[in-house]
Amino acid sequence: MIIIMKPKTEEEQIKKVISIVEGKGLKINLSKGMTNFIIGCIGDTSVLDPSKLLRIDGVDKVLKVQEPFKKANKLFKQEPTIVDVNGVKIGGKNLGIMAGPCSVESEEQIIEVAKSVKASGGNFLRGGAFKPRTSPYSFQGLELEGLKLLKLAKKETGLQIVTELMSTDYIDDFVENVDVIQIGARNMQNFDLLKQIGKTDKPILLKRGLSATIEEWLMSAEYIMAGGNENVILCERGIRTFEPYTRNTLDLSAIPVVKRLSHLPIIIDPSHAGGYWYLVEPMAKAAIVAGADGLMIEVHNDPENALSDGQQSIKPENFRSLMEKIKVLAKLESKEI
Amino acid sequence: MIIIMKPKTEEEQIKKVISIVEGKGLKINLSKGMTNFIIGCIGDTSVLDPSKLLRIDGVDKVLKVQEPFKKANKLFKQEPTIVDVNGVKIGGKNLGIMAGPCSVESEEQIIEVAKSVKASGGNFLRGGAFKPRTSPYSFQGLELEGLKLLKLAKKETGLQIVTELMSTDYIDDFVENVDVIQIGARNMQNFDLLKQIGKTDKPILLKRGLSATIEEWLMSAEYIMAGGNENVILCERGIRTFEPYTRNTLDLSAIPVVKRLSHLPIIIDPSHAGGYWYLVEPMAKAAIVAGADGLMIEVHNDPENALSDGQQSIKPENFRSLMEKIKVLAKLESKEI
Amino acid sequence: MIIIMKPKTEEEQIKKVISIVEGKGLKINLSKGMTNFIIGCIGDTSVLDPSKLLRIDGVDKVLKVQEPFKKANKLFKQEPTIVDVNGVKIGGKNLGIMAGPCSVESEEQIIEVAKSVKASGGNFLRGGAFKPRTSPYSFQGLELEGLKLLKLAKKETGLQIVTELMSTDYIDDFVENVDVIQIGARNMQNFDLLKQIGKTDKPILLKRGLSATIEEWLMSAEYIMAGGNENVILCERGIRTFEPYTRNTLDLSAIPVVKRLSHLPIIIDPSHAGGYWYLVEPMAKAAIVAGADGLMIEVHNDPENALSDGQQSIKPENFRSLMEKIKVLAKLESKEI
Amino acid sequence: MIIIMKPKTEEEQIKKVISIVEGKGLKINLSKGMTNFIIGCIGDTSVLDPSKLLRIDGVDKVLKVQEPFKKANKLFKQEPTIVDVNGVKIGGKNLGIMAGPCSVESEEQIIEVAKSVKASGGNFLRGGAFKPRTSPYSFQGLELEGLKLLKLAKKETGLQIVTELMSTDYIDDFVENVDVIQIGARNMQNFDLLKQIGKTDKPILLKRGLSATIEEWLMSAEYIMAGGNENVILCERGIRTFEPYTRNTLDLSAIPVVKRLSHLPIIIDPSHAGGYWYLVEPMAKAAIVAGADGLMIEVHNDPENALSDGQQSIKPENFRSLMEKIKVLAKLESKEI
Repeated sequence: MIIIMKPKTEEEQIKKVISIVEGKGLKINLSKGMTNFIIGCIGDTSVLDPSKLLRIDGVDKVLKVQEPFKKANKLFKQEPTIVDVNGVKIGGKNLGIMAGPCSVESEEQIIEVAKSVKASGGNFLRGGAFKPRTSPYSFQGLELEGLKLLKLAKKETGLQIVTELMSTDYIDDFVENVDVIQIGARNMQNFDLLKQIGKTDKPILLKRGLSATIEEWLMSAEYIMAGGNENVILCERGIRTFEPYTRNTLDLSAIPVVKRLSHLPIIIDPSHAGGYWYLVEPMAKAAIVAGADGLMIEVHNDPENALSDGQQSIKPENFRSLMEKIKVLAKLESKEI
Repeated sequence: MIIIMKPKTEEEQIKKVISIVEGKGLKINLSKGMTNFIIGCIGDTSVLDPSKLLRIDGVDKVLKVQEPFKKANKLFKQEPTIVDVNGVKIGGKNLGIMAGPCSVESEEQIIEVAKSVKASGGNFLRGGAFKPRTSPYSFQGLELEGLKLLKLAKKETGLQIVTELMSTDYIDDFVENVDVIQIGARNMQNFDLLKQIGKTDKPILLKRGLSATIEEWLMSAEYIMAGGNENVILCERGIRTFEPYTRNTLDLSAIPVVKRLSHLPIIIDPSHAGGYWYLVEPMAKAAIVAGADGLMIEVHNDPENALSDGQQSIKPENFRSLMEKIKVLAKLESKEI
Repeated sequence: MIIIMKPKTEEEQIKKVISIVEGKGLKINLSKGMTNFIIGCIGDTSVLDPSKLLRIDGVDKVLKVQEPFKKANKLFKQEPTIVDVNGVKIGGKNLGIMAGPCSVESEEQIIEVAKSVKASGGNFLRGGAFKPRTSPYSFQGLELEGLKLLKLAKKETGLQIVTELMSTDYIDDFVENVDVIQIGARNMQNFDLLKQIGKTDKPILLKRGLSATIEEWLMSAEYIMAGGNENVILCERGIRTFEPYTRNTLDLSAIPVVKRLSHLPIIIDPSHAGGYWYLVEPMAKAAIVAGADGLMIEVHNDPENALSDGQQSIKPENFRSLMEKIKVLAKLESKEI
Repeated sequence: MIIIMKPKTEEEQIKKVISIVEGKGLKINLSKGMTNFIIGCIGDTSVLDPSKLLRIDGVDKVLKVQEPFKKANKLFKQEPTIVDVNGVKIGGKNLGIMAGPCSVESEEQIIEVAKSVKASGGNFLRGGAFKPRTSPYSFQGLELEGLKLLKLAKKETGLQIVTELMSTDYIDDFVENVDVIQIGARNMQNFDLLKQIGKTDKPILLKRGLSATIEEWLMSAEYIMAGGNENVILCERGIRTFEPYTRNTLDLSAIPVVKRLSHLPIIIDPSHAGGYWYLVEPMAKAAIVAGADGLMIEVHNDPENALSDGQQSIKPENFRSLMEKIKVLAKLESKEI
């Protein structure tokens, strides 16, 4: 950590800052620029709080040298993390293709969709049982009944189940019935939930918040990992911008950035990001060649009558055709599904 | 709700859309523009899901005529809601001034700050017992011990207590010990939490999410109100933009916008918004003349040694001086503290 | 255009609005919803100004049915525009690969880079002669001398020249010496410049503004086209968000959105978008499979000593290797370079 | 400037960076943190280009210590700049109140509005003669005829004239006829225009770009000042966010931030920022108590029939009533109009 003092700061103030830093067991490197004194802090600077330093008279800026995440940091683990979901892997050379409806609606629906996902080459079934809806008057999901139906669909197809957990009240149900626990964008900084799933050993799919920076997202992964659960898969699903033609702006640059900063796998959800079905195919293909470790795609057998988010779902036949293209691109990238 | 069909859509498709709309018990008004057919839907259109309509071939756009919030909507309740917190009112002519440290740190600290808040004319004591911190390695608050200390401070000063609830596990503790339950920006769309506090009768302070639109914020208020608890106070605390000189951009226009859309009171938190102590006074004053129903301000007796967010806290003597200015402006606005 | 009246608006006000609309030669369709009157305006609604309508008492909202761009609108020209630059085409099946240094620095530099671009399969040489720099104290480009050097490089390699015009004072020089005139992001709404280049017959590369919506970008294309010059190539180069790990956020969804709205070709600049060289390859590949009509890439023979933007330039050998991958992907997409 | 090297960088690379820095005539301060070497650069670091440094192997980050603006920097001029417009001052204790229609439409209109602005206590008449319109098909202003009408209005009322210049072709006309030359948000980084007005001695009103950071805005002021013209007035007019209820989000925090960084005066335009007339009064009042040096407000005698932006204009009687409130607040702030 580097502390920049204001021009013309009195020596007494500089000494005060130095004594605070040294009081924390750190060493200092003091240098004088053209106009400012600069105090370099050497040692484990995570004991320093920039917020407090900035409150001291004479301190102008506090610059971070190290990223604040540790367990998620590539610096401390070079090789990519491969998350193993009952033998199905994500990360390294392994692509995870998660597909299915926005919401689980009925046994018939979820099994029909699951079969088509399986037939097209997907390896995970997604489907919301508990739905985070903007309006309290919208359909909120089949809840525990939805988990049962997902389990039936797994039995029928062998697909691994990924579905969203919104409440700590249901952690046990999810640990028992689900293969990957999804934390939605709106709960990315629900720290209570992160801490509690950090104590389980289930793989976690952590969606990026609606306007979270990549650093904050990795810090949320850190919350889970700090609890002992290092099976975290990141999922980019669009960030909020001022552009109205798309619901959110899919940030595909997040793939190479995350690969540079962290060893965790990252997948892309092109359905929620753009909000329109016609954006799914081009963005899914783009994600694969940009280095994503997988995709999460909404597939519905009857989008016009879907109970949620029909406009962003593609039909099973379009998913099949998309998967043919994905397979070709995956091969070019030396990836396997 | 208005459905715009694409140019050259076949009659059959238009009939299909009409039959869907009529099937929901609505009436339709069909008109033909220069290039597009336009279907007006008349009746309670909350039964229509734009997402499904957009998935139908031939549908180009779906435009909303009404706001999606009901209980929070000024259309259905003209007079401003006045939230009564054990006799201390917020809304209408009544300003709520909430002040105190970011975190409760010790009995001595919270009582000293509380006394100075009281002496300067504040009517609520704020102070975090459970702290939402970006890093799992940062101080997470004194938790239940913090609630006890707040209660002591209340006993000493008579100030009403407002503090943040992050987990459904502690709802009973908060209902028992706290006067206003704060829902933080990061939990604005933690729908599980919103539903559960909607069943209590405690006043709720609902912070706007880091990048929430005003509509989404009011929909989160609607979640609480739909559960039966209509004592909701909105709190604007800055939205995320690309500007790095301030932590967030305080959106003061939200005050007149909320006043136009809703009957709920709205207060402003200039401390978290900007992230620097020197922004607090000008933004607090601005909030009052822009029509805010109150303020939430971080005051710390020793900001340089605060356990969190010291750089945005002001000292008790600065709070006193700020309150003198606020009182003059409040009088001009015909408001009372 | 659809006008939504406020609930409880008096009949007199509704009549006033109707008479204004009819006075413009339009027909109206009046319908009554649950709470609001709705006035549909039928005919060429470009004569109506939403801003004025919104000022009339009783008017609540004005909703647009049609996109405001005409010549750029796919509705009025289904087949994709193919821009022909002295026989080198962009659009349809033809990819335009523009590469070269941020700034033209010397004859030796530009010719060396041009040769390597040519050898690797690029068909355009980019290079800034006039540089838009945030600081007045930064290198501003070789100006007219730069144009001369670009012309020399063209003579040597046969590559078409694309370079940025910042001032109407130099239009004649650009028309004479350049093959594609680039309008930079910062000048996307320099309407004076747009109008004047609209009177030339040179192909124009129009970069998206730093925070322009797609609609505004197409309206800027419309400015050029309205002047008579329909040879417009759009270039997405990242939009401003709150994410600090990348300079801007590359909005690849803009490709399918633009393809849906307009017939104009769209290319991607992954160098300026992300701001770091390591983002160039993954984003360039992603752009191609997402349907882009070309790329604009910064290549410098000695990035460490570049006079501008070295950190986002790739070296000639990396460009060669990238082009091998692009060629494979282009073939999959049935595109030709 | 501080250069952070990557962990495990070889000594040879560190020596290379040091030799580059020293080659520019700077001194260095080398220190070793826990994992990284850190190179402090001492001297006039404006000769270093972070972009080039970042391209060197082993360089991880480059951190700036000093702000990049010089003439606009408060560090080098403590007392506030007071811009004198023919005796009417802006800055220090002097408020500039600029009001008038979005566009000059006719002699009758501009003179009527000017008289009412004067009567209510405004000291500048605003009015667009050249209008930057998103659509080429919208009214573009009366152009030179508009300047003439503004001059007539000045003769009639004595108000100083402020109006927007969009093209270098008209600089002479503006220097001759106008008192303050406005540079619009869309031209904030039209560097050609900035350079040329920097050579005049007219006061310049520089609007903040639609998504410009405060640093970029001050750098645009620096362009003008570097040319010799130090009479720059900054004008905040809203920045682009994701919030749709307001056209832009007015960033009032920019007032205290600019006051901390620069000596230049800053005024607020609440009309363009929000886009709706009902936001003007609360935001204008807020601006004054937050420390603004003035206001720019749209006033139209007949907003329903305005040729542009009617929905954000207030009527003369509302302006009069607003000015009464502004005068009271100005007095509290020890400001004079």
